[in-house]
Amino acid sequence: MSKYDIIVLGSGPGGYVTAIRASQLGFKTAIVEKESLGGVCLNWGCIPTKALLKSAQVFEYLKHAEDYGLSVKDADKDFDAVVKRSRGVAEGMSKGVQFLMKKNKIDVIEGFGKLKPGKKVEVDGKDYSADHIIIATGARSRELPSLPQDGEKVIGYREAMTLKKQPKKMIVVGSGAIGVEFAYFYNSMGTDVTIVEYLPNVVPVEDEDVSKQLERSFKKNGIKIMTSAEVTNVDTSGNGVKATVKTKKGEEVLEADVVLSAVGIKTNIENIGLEDVGIVVDRDKILVNDYYQTNIPGYYAIGDVTPGQALAHVASAEGILCVEKIANMHVEALDYGNIPGCTYCSPEIASVGLTEKAAKEEGYDIKVGKFPFSASGKASAGGNKDGFVKVIFDAKYGEWLGCHMIGAGVTDMIAEAVLGRKLETTGHEVLKAVHPHPTMSEAVMEAVADAYDEVIHL
Amino acid sequence: MSKYDIIVLGSGPGGYVTAIRASQLGFKTAIVEKESLGGVCLNWGCIPTKALLKSAQVFEYLKHAEDYGLSVKDADKDFDAVVKRSRGVAEGMSKGVQFLMKKNKIDVIEGFGKLKPGKKVEVDGKDYSADHIIIATGARSRELPSLPQDGEKVIGYREAMTLKKQPKKMIVVGSGAIGVEFAYFYNSMGTDVTIVEYLPNVVPVEDEDVSKQLERSFKKNGIKIMTSAEVTNVDTSGNGVKATVKTKKGEEVLEADVVLSAVGIKTNIENIGLEDVGIVVDRDKILVNDYYQTNIPGYYAIGDVTPGQALAHVASAEGILCVEKIANMHVEALDYGNIPGCTYCSPEIASVGLTEKAAKEEGYDIKVGKFPFSASGKASAGGNKDGFVKVIFDAKYGEWLGCHMIGAGVTDMIAEAVLGRKLETTGHEVLKAVHPHPTMSEAVMEAVADAYDEVIHL
Repeated sequence: MSKYDIIVLGSGPGGYVTAIRASQLGFKTAIVEKESLGGVCLNWGCIPTKALLKSAQVFEYLKHAEDYGLSVKDADKDFDAVVKRSRGVAEGMSKGVQFLMKKNKIDVIEGFGKLKPGKKVEVDGKDYSADHIIIATGARSRELPSLPQDGEKVIGYREAMTLKKQPKKMIVVGSGAIGVEFAYFYNSMGTDVTIVEYLPNVVPVEDEDVSKQLERSFKKNGIKIMTSAEVTNVDTSGNGVKATVKTKKGEEVLEADVVLSAVGIKTNIENIGLEDVGIVVDRDKILVNDYYQTNIPGYYAIGDVTPGQALAHVASAEGILCVEKIANMHVEALDYGNIPGCTYCSPEIASVGLTEKAAKEEGYDIKVGKFPFSASGKASAGGNKDGFVKVIFDAKYGEWLGCHMIGAGVTDMIAEAVLGRKLETTGHEVLKAVHPHPTMSEAVMEAVADAYDEVIHL
Repeated sequence: MSKYDIIVLGSGPGGYVTAIRASQLGFKTAIVEKESLGGVCLNWGCIPTKALLKSAQVFEYLKHAEDYGLSVKDADKDFDAVVKRSRGVAEGMSKGVQFLMKKNKIDVIEGFGKLKPGKKVEVDGKDYSADHIIIATGARSRELPSLPQDGEKVIGYREAMTLKKQPKKMIVVGSGAIGVEFAYFYNSMGTDVTIVEYLPNVVPVEDEDVSKQLERSFKKNGIKIMTSAEVTNVDTSGNGVKATVKTKKGEEVLEADVVLSAVGIKTNIENIGLEDVGIVVDRDKILVNDYYQTNIPGYYAIGDVTPGQALAHVASAEGILCVEKIANMHVEALDYGNIPGCTYCSPEIASVGLTEKAAKEEGYDIKVGKFPFSASGKASAGGNKDGFVKVIFDAKYGEWLGCHMIGAGVTDMIAEAVLGRKLETTGHEVLKAVHPHPTMSEAVMEAVADAYDEVIHL
């Protein structure tokens, strides 16, 4: 029986990063993967969707070339080529992880891993043992009873990124990051897209101002949006799909070629031996402490299978922290209040910390500042005037409670707020950190200035 | 005679921002402008060049549409339309400043202002007095004796952004930000461009690794580069220009339609009455203290006319600080060691703090980390694999000495380093600030990890 210091179950951005850090720290490490190295993120999530969205962004430039003093004829997309490019990027990244495993001398065990008592993992009938076993099996698209996925007419994100044929009409159920990214992509490619969101606002976890801005931008681009609406039934018996949508006004039936169900995720915790080992699960999540230890010594869990935000960067951070703790390093527990979230449609969305509503609900007396990109020189020059930066400070102590951005390139701008908040900055320090001109990032400084009635360009 | 609390001479990004902040603080404020509100930055610098560069960026997408699964026929640029768009953006911004002046109740005095003793400014024969006079007259393109500008065949940045006809061949003398931005723009438009740089590296103020990366990228794009080279003579007698270039190998004569001289700036300090008032000038700069007071009480100077970096954001920050001090606010002197610099060619460049060479010269024992975008998932998905992030830390105390970036969108990423350095972060804190995945900004975190031998994706 092969013996390791650490075995990681699952090679997504939680698992493979954990394995690399473990190897760096001197642990003899193995990783178990049933499908492709890199997991959903690299193969069916973060990475291939960003490739699709880049094609959409470039296609928008082609369609609006005249706005920039340029001209083209017959701007067109080759849907298959767009998908193929995306698959190529994903494959390249997966090979990259393969290379990293080899470089870090991590054994890759292919197959479905099942936990066994006594710190063992069984893969294809063979047992492997380790001092520490880290569960990082991730999650998949959640199925609603009213919306069973057949993989053809009613699909999840996975099918949505490799459709053989571009649908003429699509219904996207759910308007979280996955939903709006696909809605944007397909609309840009020329599909007629309708979003159905159960809650009153699209991207419902975001600040309400952001939701409203996105709704305006999407509608301007021709995407139909139904909020406070629910798909109660789908009929796939005919040529396409008939979806019954219940709204406040009553019921209506929408027809489409495809319905994309993007209503959240379901953790991959079935048949991996949790019951045999006796690991405690609550509401679809494995319970862990601050260092990702489960209730059974020697068994850990990180990433989507645990209660934190189901995001790739959270999984990676948790995995690193988990193995650093195993290595007896001094570690600080992860601050789940300072995790940024990004959505890569156009305009992009990025945020960290409390929304205005949440800050009020938590009882804070707040100062709010907002700077629209319409007042930014760089945004004007770039033709990116949609959106804004909104900041929320605690009026009493100056703590930066939240930062909410919507606009071009904001997903690369939120790191400033994350680091600033980690370093316990006040608004004054952000304001006096000289932001380069002309950049979109000046909007952060100006939004802070607005919160303190010192804004220059409004 | 009109009497003000504060008169600002010049309405560039130094002057107009100063005036707005002065007005916010309750001062009765006037601003004197001889030409267009917004000065060089808005009308002939930062903003219109970014508009030109955006057209170039979109044109690149048009030319490489196939890389993204898209197709176009006859992708072409309309040089006049590209220039016209840029002028439109500049005019819009200048009108924006006009609006801001009105909104903030700042009197705009049109004409050439001349300082007089007794805290007065004369404009078109009329005297205006103020308790505080702030000189913000900026700078213009510097002329070399060997390269006299005739505005047609030998030009400065100003003419370069409004050429009536696109040159077939262009020589760009000097490879600072202005030089390389125009080189990139014209090359992208189809002009045959040669850069002549006196020093051994292009963008010579940047870290050497950045210079080398830019040189590689530019050469790949067909831009010719001559370093350690000097234009010793230009002959404009014929149809075009013949420029004699002296290199280590000897002299050669280059022919072109236009030579762009981008060899730095000359301050606008002539005929503004400095001598009459007795204000001390040294090597083309007005000498000031930490609060921008000149040697004569009541007279201040900010922006390009003073010794700090000649950058728009420096001028704005100086002006704000200057009037806040006048208003008896508690102010901290500007940290000129924490000023970011940005260059907007493709790949973009952004940096702050010490280069590796400068850090070594200052005697620091350093830790250097570097993360190439070729290893970034987001960069792969976006087709932006050129470039890297490089970080430099003091090995002893962990101070973040410098951050140097080259790649797509980095000008919006440098703010993180500026704020982090202002807040006296260590590498560990940057590393443990969870950067969102997948973003280009992860490269900052990874570069820091590399400096401490904890990099994951290399």
